[in-house]
Amino acid sequence: MSAAERGLSYKEAGVDIDAATRAMRGIAEMVRSTTTPDTLSGPGSFGGLYRVPRGVSNPVLVASTDGVGTKLKVAFLTGRHDTVGEDLVNHCVNDILAQGAQPLFFLDYIGMGRLEPGTVESLVEGIARGCRTNGCALLGGETAEMPDFYAPGEYDLAGTIVGVVEEGAVIDGSAIREGDAIIALASSGLHTNGYSLARRVVFDRMGLSLEDPFPEEDGSVADVLLRPHRSYLAALSPLIAQGRVHGLAHITGGGITDNVPRVLPDGLDARLDRTSWEVPPLFRVLAREGGVDDAEMFRAFNMGVGMMAFVAASDAERVVHELTAADERAWIAGGVVAGDRRVLYS
Amino acid sequence: MSAAERGLSYKEAGVDIDAATRAMRGIAEMVRSTTTPDTLSGPGSFGGLYRVPRGVSNPVLVASTDGVGTKLKVAFLTGRHDTVGEDLVNHCVNDILAQGAQPLFFLDYIGMGRLEPGTVESLVEGIARGCRTNGCALLGGETAEMPDFYAPGEYDLAGTIVGVVEEGAVIDGSAIREGDAIIALASSGLHTNGYSLARRVVFDRMGLSLEDPFPEEDGSVADVLLRPHRSYLAALSPLIAQGRVHGLAHITGGGITDNVPRVLPDGLDARLDRTSWEVPPLFRVLAREGGVDDAEMFRAFNMGVGMMAFVAASDAERVVHELTAADERAWIAGGVVAGDRRVLYS
Repeated sequence: MSAAERGLSYKEAGVDIDAATRAMRGIAEMVRSTTTPDTLSGPGSFGGLYRVPRGVSNPVLVASTDGVGTKLKVAFLTGRHDTVGEDLVNHCVNDILAQGAQPLFFLDYIGMGRLEPGTVESLVEGIARGCRTNGCALLGGETAEMPDFYAPGEYDLAGTIVGVVEEGAVIDGSAIREGDAIIALASSGLHTNGYSLARRVVFDRMGLSLEDPFPEEDGSVADVLLRPHRSYLAALSPLIAQGRVHGLAHITGGGITDNVPRVLPDGLDARLDRTSWEVPPLFRVLAREGGVDDAEMFRAFNMGVGMMAFVAASDAERVVHELTAADERAWIAGGVVAGDRRVLYS
Repeated sequence: MSAAERGLSYKEAGVDIDAATRAMRGIAEMVRSTTTPDTLSGPGSFGGLYRVPRGVSNPVLVASTDGVGTKLKVAFLTGRHDTVGEDLVNHCVNDILAQGAQPLFFLDYIGMGRLEPGTVESLVEGIARGCRTNGCALLGGETAEMPDFYAPGEYDLAGTIVGVVEEGAVIDGSAIREGDAIIALASSGLHTNGYSLARRVVFDRMGLSLEDPFPEEDGSVADVLLRPHRSYLAALSPLIAQGRVHGLAHITGGGITDNVPRVLPDGLDARLDRTSWEVPPLFRVLAREGGVDDAEMFRAFNMGVGMMAFVAASDAERVVHELTAADERAWIAGGVVAGDRRVLYS
């Protein structure tokens, strides 16, 4: 009997259900390590079950889906797959924190050409670590084997977070007033944005390889490019609980320029003093070596700022002090003035 | 100045933020069409806001993430991108319905090599239609432009649903008793499973093209392969609300063979009478032309059954009658016997 005449199996068509089952077994323990008192299901149920926390009288759920973007290419190149999961969780945590929400649970999606149990385990290891750090349960997920979709060794990774906030405590920027101070919280690096451009500059223009030291930075190219996205949950939560935060802008795709206006009420501008912080060497090197102009830099990258918090001017110094005590690098970066929902750099 | 010396922009690196903004504008109206009374945010906020419905005294959230799998390849081949979104929503709705939950909201993830606003609009059109049909809000999502990840014209699509169920009304199979009847609800086709194998058989073995009539079926190859995943929400909800459903198995990846045991309590088997239904021509053709053996067929495909409901034997006839009145094709397919969490086919 020729190969063409033989009967087909699902495995020969590129889908190995048994490998999927084995991979699931390997990650079950990591999933369990994220269990919280309100988690009502274990791995393997059709849907994950989570009790709405009792302490919230008018609970509003806040949800966000995100991907890691082309930072994944750096994971492929280095073979380090255990940090991008943490990037993803922290990114999602910050997105719902921007509306005042505390995370409840997270679900991941991994798309792969051929299921590689070791890689899946590393990815889930990072996700589970991110979940534990942020006190959020890894409630479910999907690992899809998609023959011919992804190059060998490559994958896509996305995730969804759900959090909760008291209805009266939702932060949406409407509390921002003329005269408010804008506090910047330092990023740890590129976080998860601008990697398509950064890789072009670092690998194509500068001709660096992964183990080269990154110019003017402390660490190799791989280290600098893989630095995990920072979570601001622990540092900002006390201030949010005290009602002292009028608005929060998570600086992601679109940079400061596009993200700050998302929370500005009509009739107000954000005036930022660029001399209030030194843009980290990483970004200065990318601008110089890529010949990327300033306006483009402030839309493609976070420029050293991972989150911007709007607070009363009279509270600003104290907020900076408390954020610093909570291990964040924070400073007054500007203020709110009359205008038209733009960012003015001075 | 040579091209190599010119400054780089984000767009030249493959990421077009303005195209993303335009695509967002096109889909905002579709997103708004899914708004429910408890939806508290519009498109564009960092996280989507959804009020926990007031009528539930001890609310448990049920969440599930899924992808469309390689059914997407059929969408690529046909250029029809407006149905796979509905597949995805219905798949997710059924997953949480299997635990007794009513859907609240949905978030999508689209990964693409280069952002194609027309394709994104078609995808979201299908997602929004699925959301409206199931009474669930499209609360957020992420469309990621990932240069070098996906072939031109291709993408990956995943989604996350969150629903709610009263804590005392969670369905987890623990109510299944020896002697219960197993009701099968007909699928509409392959739903979203087994496409890697089906495509091998249909295109490689049978040499069919998209516009050929599908043998023994009513419609072209494209029509038959793209038939949307069926949602059982409307038909099953009244029975669930009346507490008449002891367990539900959504027949997805792994087929009847792997999904039914997920809800069986220890000490019980599901005995299925294969003469109780005629496997639809689609599956018979795939088995015959692919030389796929029977055990493999029942793990790779749903074999004509989209959902299995466990009910009291005394209630079975009435359940079938009510499901039929709700436009489902349903029948008694077997019963629960003492055993070891296996499926026995007879």
